[in-house]
Amino acid sequence: MAESLIRQENHGAVARLVMTGGANYNALSVQMLAALGQALDRIAADDSVRAVILAAEGKAFSAGHDLRQMQAARADADGGRAAYEELFADCAQVMQKIAALPQPVIAEVQGVATAAGCQLVASCDMAVAAEGVRFGVNGINIGLFCTTPMVALTRAIPPRAAFELLVTGEFMDAARARELGLVNRVVPAAELAESTMELAQLVASKLPSAVRLGKRGFREQQGLSLADAYQRGGAIMCENLMLPETDEGMAAFLEKRPPSWAN
Amino acid sequence: MAESLIRQENHGAVARLVMTGGANYNALSVQMLAALGQALDRIAADDSVRAVILAAEGKAFSAGHDLRQMQAARADADGGRAAYEELFADCAQVMQKIAALPQPVIAEVQGVATAAGCQLVASCDMAVAAEGVRFGVNGINIGLFCTTPMVALTRAIPPRAAFELLVTGEFMDAARARELGLVNRVVPAAELAESTMELAQLVASKLPSAVRLGKRGFREQQGLSLADAYQRGGAIMCENLMLPETDEGMAAFLEKRPPSWAN
Amino acid sequence: MAESLIRQENHGAVARLVMTGGANYNALSVQMLAALGQALDRIAADDSVRAVILAAEGKAFSAGHDLRQMQAARADADGGRAAYEELFADCAQVMQKIAALPQPVIAEVQGVATAAGCQLVASCDMAVAAEGVRFGVNGINIGLFCTTPMVALTRAIPPRAAFELLVTGEFMDAARARELGLVNRVVPAAELAESTMELAQLVASKLPSAVRLGKRGFREQQGLSLADAYQRGGAIMCENLMLPETDEGMAAFLEKRPPSWAN
Repeated sequence: MAESLIRQENHGAVARLVMTGGANYNALSVQMLAALGQALDRIAADDSVRAVILAAEGKAFSAGHDLRQMQAARADADGGRAAYEELFADCAQVMQKIAALPQPVIAEVQGVATAAGCQLVASCDMAVAAEGVRFGVNGINIGLFCTTPMVALTRAIPPRAAFELLVTGEFMDAARARELGLVNRVVPAAELAESTMELAQLVASKLPSAVRLGKRGFREQQGLSLADAYQRGGAIMCENLMLPETDEGMAAFLEKRPPSWAN
Repeated sequence: MAESLIRQENHGAVARLVMTGGANYNALSVQMLAALGQALDRIAADDSVRAVILAAEGKAFSAGHDLRQMQAARADADGGRAAYEELFADCAQVMQKIAALPQPVIAEVQGVATAAGCQLVASCDMAVAAEGVRFGVNGINIGLFCTTPMVALTRAIPPRAAFELLVTGEFMDAARARELGLVNRVVPAAELAESTMELAQLVASKLPSAVRLGKRGFREQQGLSLADAYQRGGAIMCENLMLPETDEGMAAFLEKRPPSWAN
Repeated sequence: MAESLIRQENHGAVARLVMTGGANYNALSVQMLAALGQALDRIAADDSVRAVILAAEGKAFSAGHDLRQMQAARADADGGRAAYEELFADCAQVMQKIAALPQPVIAEVQGVATAAGCQLVASCDMAVAAEGVRFGVNGINIGLFCTTPMVALTRAIPPRAAFELLVTGEFMDAARARELGLVNRVVPAAELAESTMELAQLVASKLPSAVRLGKRGFREQQGLSLADAYQRGGAIMCENLMLPETDEGMAAFLEKRPPSWAN
């Protein structure tokens, strides 16, 4: 049911998740969040997946939460409060599932990514955007400040640039998004899927156990003091070095030959 | 008295505070800091104000602390120490009042902004600068490292770019300041006041209660872990959603009509 | 012995440390780390040094850890684990010695700086790079995610740009490194040494006690809340103001004459 809102395509070791709610601008409805959560849980348990693309069909990558659904909740006895609390708890959980996923996740962004849709982009580990894509956290235009999207956005770009987007409701183009660090690569729209797949395949070609250790370390050391971060990082480096495949990778490099890693 | 160092102009819901100490390069003297603090306190209590511009008259936005006044304090029995402690406590309080102000504050920067003047720009929520404006934290040139301006600056731009400015005493131009995130918009000098007012009016046109919730959330989630930040952000989103005006804003959007908000 | 891996040149108040392991791409071997640590300890105790340049001979600034040495440790009874733990503890200590050094340290980067070599650049307070220099944290190419280099890198540039480098193993050029904040200045290769020396001499021309207070303050206020950072920063400002040389610097400025500081 909910599952059908996400289509999973497997391209070798790359799982491409496609949001199929294009008719509804891929709104992050209760159902879409559930589908995303289930897809991420499935991939977390699937060692054959080494990199993930999160893509979308239609004119928008995602326009954020489902306003129609949210307005319907106002008919509840509590005016919607409980429904909203659950919605934002679910949404935050999905965003943090991306961070906690063992595999790197790359957003493949077309059209527009607004409000929680922009949050979704900022929650992926990397993003590729088509030229012409516009980003916004523009809930303020309808009287709803994008406070939760802000959590992801202010951890991706400088604070004052983020504040401007939040308080003006204006859009940022793909070039500026790359300059500021939200987006990693900007490519012609016709090459978006191919370019994103190339990046994902590049990640998937690396030693998966090392990538997993690294992504875990990336998250774990954030916000720590320099001394604590080095202690944590050093422990992960040692763990990485004790992998037989890393032994082989280092030996192969010194012998100027490709590593013989099982595929 | 002190109050006269700041002139408040009201432009609809925008309060434009103008530092009138141009003859003294708008030095942040004890009196100017007191005047700023009083003006901010007044605005914090004034619900008719929805956005604030902080502007300045003369050749400099602000050249920082009042060196003549600081040197005079050396004649005190303790060589000035108590006066300096009070000065930096007062200054830090004013800077944090801007952060705590319910309304967004936009710096309108002409000429130069140096030392604590640069700190003042970095302490506003956003900044518009005229082409040709120069920023510096150049106290080191007279043997006084800009340690307190650094607090604001390193929270606005990348650390190594900030360190270079601090330790060399050199200037940064407006274009680089925008690239790094200190400044939001750079405009021709002749259009500075008008462009800043347009930005402020845009902010003032948004639902004020949502803007206030958002600015509060922006500050509150800084430095929190992802999980804590989402918990805080989610609570604010729910509070925002329960506002009747937000109900109206969302309903209006779905009905493709402008919201009918009281003005 | 180990000491010979680092050559110290004194240029007035600037100490230029040169890694002389060009034949081995200035690998951060156990010996090189020890030599760096000793050189830094010596400089920390030498008040005649006011600024430090960290440069390198050969085709690479540094290609990171010494893989041959690391592979040899696999013959140990524990497969190398104890040796690796010691290596990363030593490496982290050297990186933090740079941060703790009283004097500012400027990396003078030629060729390539990869893995722990890139970490070394990011651990210096500033960096000047020759045009054409390439930066990478590309251990992932041999199955070893650059988790400890990541600690320094993610504190210098935006997180998503850092993650891309870490997980793809690709290079970043000098221009992008400056845009993102890793590098302060990019100059033609023929002018690298001279330009870096000019920057170092500029730093060395400032009041050394103020520079020391400022560098200490820079590190101490990182990661603190705004209120705590201002409290710390204010205390350092007062300490700085009580220096007789700062009194002289401020008086000289007001009297429009150069300060008469002992050289």
